[in-house]
Amino acid sequence: MTQNLDRLNALPLRDDLRGKAPYGAPQLDVAVALNTNENTHPVPADVHTAIVEEVAAAAWTLNRYPDREFTALREELAAYLGHGLGAEHLWAANGSNEILQQILQAFGGPGRSLLTFVPTYSMYPLLAAGTHTAFVAGERSADFGLTAQSAAEQVRRHRPDVVFLCSPNNPTGTALGEDVVTAVYEAGEPFRTVVVVDEAYAEFSHAGTGTALSLLADRPRLIVTRTMSKAFALAGARLGYFAAAPEVADAIRLVRLPYHLSAVTQATALAALRHSEALLANVEDIKRQRDRIVEELGRLGLAPAASDSNFVFFGGMPDSRAMWQALLEDGVLVRDVGIPGHLRVTAGTEEETTAFLTSMERIVSAG
Amino acid sequence: MTQNLDRLNALPLRDDLRGKAPYGAPQLDVAVALNTNENTHPVPADVHTAIVEEVAAAAWTLNRYPDREFTALREELAAYLGHGLGAEHLWAANGSNEILQQILQAFGGPGRSLLTFVPTYSMYPLLAAGTHTAFVAGERSADFGLTAQSAAEQVRRHRPDVVFLCSPNNPTGTALGEDVVTAVYEAGEPFRTVVVVDEAYAEFSHAGTGTALSLLADRPRLIVTRTMSKAFALAGARLGYFAAAPEVADAIRLVRLPYHLSAVTQATALAALRHSEALLANVEDIKRQRDRIVEELGRLGLAPAASDSNFVFFGGMPDSRAMWQALLEDGVLVRDVGIPGHLRVTAGTEEETTAFLTSMERIVSAG
Repeated sequence: MTQNLDRLNALPLRDDLRGKAPYGAPQLDVAVALNTNENTHPVPADVHTAIVEEVAAAAWTLNRYPDREFTALREELAAYLGHGLGAEHLWAANGSNEILQQILQAFGGPGRSLLTFVPTYSMYPLLAAGTHTAFVAGERSADFGLTAQSAAEQVRRHRPDVVFLCSPNNPTGTALGEDVVTAVYEAGEPFRTVVVVDEAYAEFSHAGTGTALSLLADRPRLIVTRTMSKAFALAGARLGYFAAAPEVADAIRLVRLPYHLSAVTQATALAALRHSEALLANVEDIKRQRDRIVEELGRLGLAPAASDSNFVFFGGMPDSRAMWQALLEDGVLVRDVGIPGHLRVTAGTEEETTAFLTSMERIVSAG
Repeated sequence: MTQNLDRLNALPLRDDLRGKAPYGAPQLDVAVALNTNENTHPVPADVHTAIVEEVAAAAWTLNRYPDREFTALREELAAYLGHGLGAEHLWAANGSNEILQQILQAFGGPGRSLLTFVPTYSMYPLLAAGTHTAFVAGERSADFGLTAQSAAEQVRRHRPDVVFLCSPNNPTGTALGEDVVTAVYEAGEPFRTVVVVDEAYAEFSHAGTGTALSLLADRPRLIVTRTMSKAFALAGARLGYFAAAPEVADAIRLVRLPYHLSAVTQATALAALRHSEALLANVEDIKRQRDRIVEELGRLGLAPAASDSNFVFFGGMPDSRAMWQALLEDGVLVRDVGIPGHLRVTAGTEEETTAFLTSMERIVSAG
């Protein structure tokens, strides 16, 4: 960001942007970075080879615009998701953020509103602001839970045009019950509310946890978003996508920038999807580390939330800012999500998790 | 697009999107595609190798988010442009379209307006609509030219928040004089108008044609956009960028989606920039074909416009739609840009250009 704030303020910037700071976690150079819910397992060697080969093939025609409809990629995404979905149900963009921005361009915007239930993914209000959609911060219970009854009541009260349900929720980590999704969808019927279930972390859920993909049939206002950044270990490739009724993808075609998805992005994602087994093998290891963090933090007297994601949200600290700083001094970077008394830590490799837990134990012991 | 228009219309789509069709040239499978101003020369083998090597290096850390500031790429872009520019003056995004969308998000939007001079790049009104910026279609002279006096007068009359000047202009191909840019900038002073010069085709200009890059010093409201899609033969990689005062990039940081530029995109663009000489070698050949088209079409009795780009806009046909169809029947796809009596053709390789000219000669001879 600028040292030249005066010069920035002299520009004819929109008034609603003045005084704002760019979104983004601090990018610090630390030994153990567990602050952005990345998958800390590098891409396996055979998947790396496949990605490079696919990009090499695509690079011979880089002088041409990419397939505007990324049909091969949509087919592979549909095959990966299952649930009877086909390419016509799929859409993709440069990360889930662009997916959500496109959804708000089509169904939100001036005179329309977005309801989410806070605390939740901190990009949601920024995406609303960027598309001039009114942002309504709905409530959760004191333990950050959300019941079907409460969610439906808030939909009836606020009559939103769009609802974002983050499940598993970031930063708290817990998945929503299927009943919450169906209750929100039904409560939104009179207002034709578009219901987006953001399942960025779905692959890390405990066995038996549902997915809103199973609810898509006969629900044309339901959209389920996913990402390849987390379970697929491809945060650097920026590939978000959604599944929905085919006409939802048609709606997005009216607002997407033409050729928004580059040929190298399409090639990278395609290769990764064709090796999903190898990539997803690390998911089980991450879940073990996640469960280990929950157990060990509990043992240390902290209050970790139940997690269906690759991170753990925990309270029970007298001073979370001091804890964040003490961890950093041990070379461990976690996320201060702005909720007093709480921090969020990504489940890394076994070694990274050990480094975090060792540091935590030292800090807690030292009082 | 959907066969299910009824189902699309049943969705709570924004009213301003209803009845619209997605932007995009027809993607037809033809022998000679000269309709989207692509660089029809494939990436040379040594550049291909460099791209694949750079992507392979980047792919080992695809599990991590990319450099949000793409610093190495901004440094290379600045070095390529020259004019005393540094990384702090540069910004990049997924294609010029995303660059222009970000500019309108920061400086346009509800209650603000964009002035362009039509006919010009047909995405401009769509970008205005997508950001809820009022679109003002300014005028050109009958021969599609634009004088400094006329442009400045229209700025004073419409008081736009943003002006897009496309130079060389798409679809007409002619570059604007430096005097037009400075006159628009000065006329916009009382309204603090942001002036964007879209130089997507600048590398194809005739020797001696100026660039607005030379005007950036002491003009904080001036932005010069470029792309790697054309001269660099990288349409598939989606890399647009701009040069401006550092505080303009800071303004865009407030509206950009975090990590919008993937690690593979950054790697691809970096490798290409480090081999700019090899890539730009084809530019001279394309300019020769472009000049050949202008000359030959004139000889055939048509009316080609002077072109500083990699395409030629031409009139002088009684029925441009019939001409488009006749060319297609010969396997040559050109662009009907919606201006009666006119077509636009991209300068391809020597063989493609010959195919186009041979077909034109046949059609014109046949009457």
